[in-house]
Amino acid sequence: MSLLDHVFWSSGISREALATGASVSKSRANAAVAGLLEQGVLEATGEQVSTGGRRAETLRLSRSIGVLLGVAMGATGLEVGVLAPGLELLAHHSEPADVRDGPALVLSRVRTLMRELLKQCGAKARDVIGIGIGVPGPVDFGSGQLVNPPLMPEWNAYSIRDDLRSEYSAPVFVDNDVNVMALGELWRMQRGLQNFLVIKVGTGIGCGIVCHGQVYRGATGSAGDVGHICVDPAGPRCHCGNLGCVETMAAGPAIARAATEAAQAGQSVLLAQMLRERGVLKLNDVAQASRAGDVAANAIVQRSGALIGQMLASVVNFYNPSHVFIGGSFQRIGPLFLAAVRQSIYQRSLALSTRHIEIQYTPLGERAGLIGAGVLAMQESLELREGMR
Amino acid sequence: MSLLDHVFWSSGISREALATGASVSKSRANAAVAGLLEQGVLEATGEQVSTGGRRAETLRLSRSIGVLLGVAMGATGLEVGVLAPGLELLAHHSEPADVRDGPALVLSRVRTLMRELLKQCGAKARDVIGIGIGVPGPVDFGSGQLVNPPLMPEWNAYSIRDDLRSEYSAPVFVDNDVNVMALGELWRMQRGLQNFLVIKVGTGIGCGIVCHGQVYRGATGSAGDVGHICVDPAGPRCHCGNLGCVETMAAGPAIARAATEAAQAGQSVLLAQMLRERGVLKLNDVAQASRAGDVAANAIVQRSGALIGQMLASVVNFYNPSHVFIGGSFQRIGPLFLAAVRQSIYQRSLALSTRHIEIQYTPLGERAGLIGAGVLAMQESLELREGMR
Repeated sequence: MSLLDHVFWSSGISREALATGASVSKSRANAAVAGLLEQGVLEATGEQVSTGGRRAETLRLSRSIGVLLGVAMGATGLEVGVLAPGLELLAHHSEPADVRDGPALVLSRVRTLMRELLKQCGAKARDVIGIGIGVPGPVDFGSGQLVNPPLMPEWNAYSIRDDLRSEYSAPVFVDNDVNVMALGELWRMQRGLQNFLVIKVGTGIGCGIVCHGQVYRGATGSAGDVGHICVDPAGPRCHCGNLGCVETMAAGPAIARAATEAAQAGQSVLLAQMLRERGVLKLNDVAQASRAGDVAANAIVQRSGALIGQMLASVVNFYNPSHVFIGGSFQRIGPLFLAAVRQSIYQRSLALSTRHIEIQYTPLGERAGLIGAGVLAMQESLELREGMR
Repeated sequence: MSLLDHVFWSSGISREALATGASVSKSRANAAVAGLLEQGVLEATGEQVSTGGRRAETLRLSRSIGVLLGVAMGATGLEVGVLAPGLELLAHHSEPADVRDGPALVLSRVRTLMRELLKQCGAKARDVIGIGIGVPGPVDFGSGQLVNPPLMPEWNAYSIRDDLRSEYSAPVFVDNDVNVMALGELWRMQRGLQNFLVIKVGTGIGCGIVCHGQVYRGATGSAGDVGHICVDPAGPRCHCGNLGCVETMAAGPAIARAATEAAQAGQSVLLAQMLRERGVLKLNDVAQASRAGDVAANAIVQRSGALIGQMLASVVNFYNPSHVFIGGSFQRIGPLFLAAVRQSIYQRSLALSTRHIEIQYTPLGERAGLIGAGVLAMQESLELREGMR
């Protein structure tokens, strides 16, 4: 890793810690830092708590080098943000969106939002140093293209890069949405955890894998495609063609369908009322009813958590991660869903795998996708810069 | 990696390739090689096919530095070997053994075999430069101790290192048996594959994971414990306490039990005859009957392959490996078992994960454990040497 990588991944570091981390002599680090400060790539801010008598400054990537654009695309929602090189969110916007509308329509909206948000920050297209995009499907990371995405078939082999090239000269990096979330969590913890998983549960179910401190994408870029792991060989048929996939039995649409059936069968006054008022029930309605203590909603949430936990038990037995972070819109349901997932994992996994495992919602919360997209943009831009030197 | 690591992992390399691989200048590599040749650590053998007019030698670790001891311990068998630093097998012996006899008895036999095999090679205890041991249970790699091994409870926290220290001053490295097999395959391919799995199927079922070119052991050393992944929530109870674990339904004892039942129920003349002659049926008998075309034995083998393939489909969806290598005593069954595993994986896994996946028996075959133990001994000894410099 270069000195700049170390500064970026530490989110604020002293000269001394930088020299140690990068395994170079203090004098060599000082000389390099002086150059980078003069070029305006680094800035020295505030004072770190000093361990000796001398004043210790914190080095950061300078805001003057430009801004990052991050995009977190979900199956049913879109989030765009402008971030500083140190990943402070300068402006952002989220709205419902349907990826099945196809790349032309969705990316046109993305470009409009990018322009508006940059304007809000007083920045221009030429100030953008990198663009990171998370998409809800398998990505060939080298080309940045989606490969047979089940939720968004129109995007197959579409070049998001070319689409954005007309407005931005900055490099564009595309990855699977939950890989991007995993990268965000890795950055938040300054690589303090080496082997963990991030599960995104929303319209679909995906998993980001961190192995030996790096995001693991698999032999052909589809690692973490856990939504089609079978949890019931006699279960309903999934859109992938198989029976009993966890996604088709436990993700957003399954929960909404079960809630609609419960409302129509007279099992819940609250859900029936919501269905009358809104015409259709969505995940957010079930989450709201569950948090209000509705018995039918709670049963639906617990069944979903148990099935997802059953899938995760297999994954935990195989991978033995230190942490499983659960993100995506299911976070909104709250503690009940998490408790059901935990119970199911502990019940099925071997004692050794689960003895020290932590299962919790993603600490970055609903911002995990956007922060992760910013990390992707900055990390890959630094690597590109390093490669060109 | 040091120069010696490069030589070891290449199993024969030119000076030029060594300089390139280790990212040092040719003059620096030449000077270091000259020193190592003089010390007798390296030897220059034969001639490589030269790309230019000059003679190109192949550098190898010198046989004069000593020998390695490798031990591959299975639940029901034991294999000990003496290997040259370049991993040529100089002498080896395998015999049935029951790990449940406990560490005192089993390791006493291991020490006897080590002495006899060293003698066969004209080597002494002080010539041993490293000892590698694969054991059929979860290992804390740092301490080299087994942690709650389900198949060999008497070994929990027993120090195999201390046991061997009375006879050998060489360092002792212990790892899970299938991690050791994975390390062996990684070495055989000179790290040419970065992300693959080795599945060992015998008395139990375990998985070795290679991630980013390194063996991945998990957060607490139990990664790859796939034997207790559930393949049938309504299946029989496993010794681990859960229902429908793939190990309890498809591994060696399950196959032997099913064959005994088939023989007793008059479903197979051949199996009934084997049972009469031998008193009990074992995996090898079922393998032999299956290869002879016995219909009942084939049905048992296919059912086992289908269940193991069902478990592997989940693992492949999650991990997206380039290759799955199947090792252990089930290799002896031959093509029918492999075909059943493949069919089951292809049927359940997503197109993207399985598009380029290769599923085959381990190329190192029944020697995978012993070669892997040699790789473990040499790799870790080199690392130890590097750390002490």
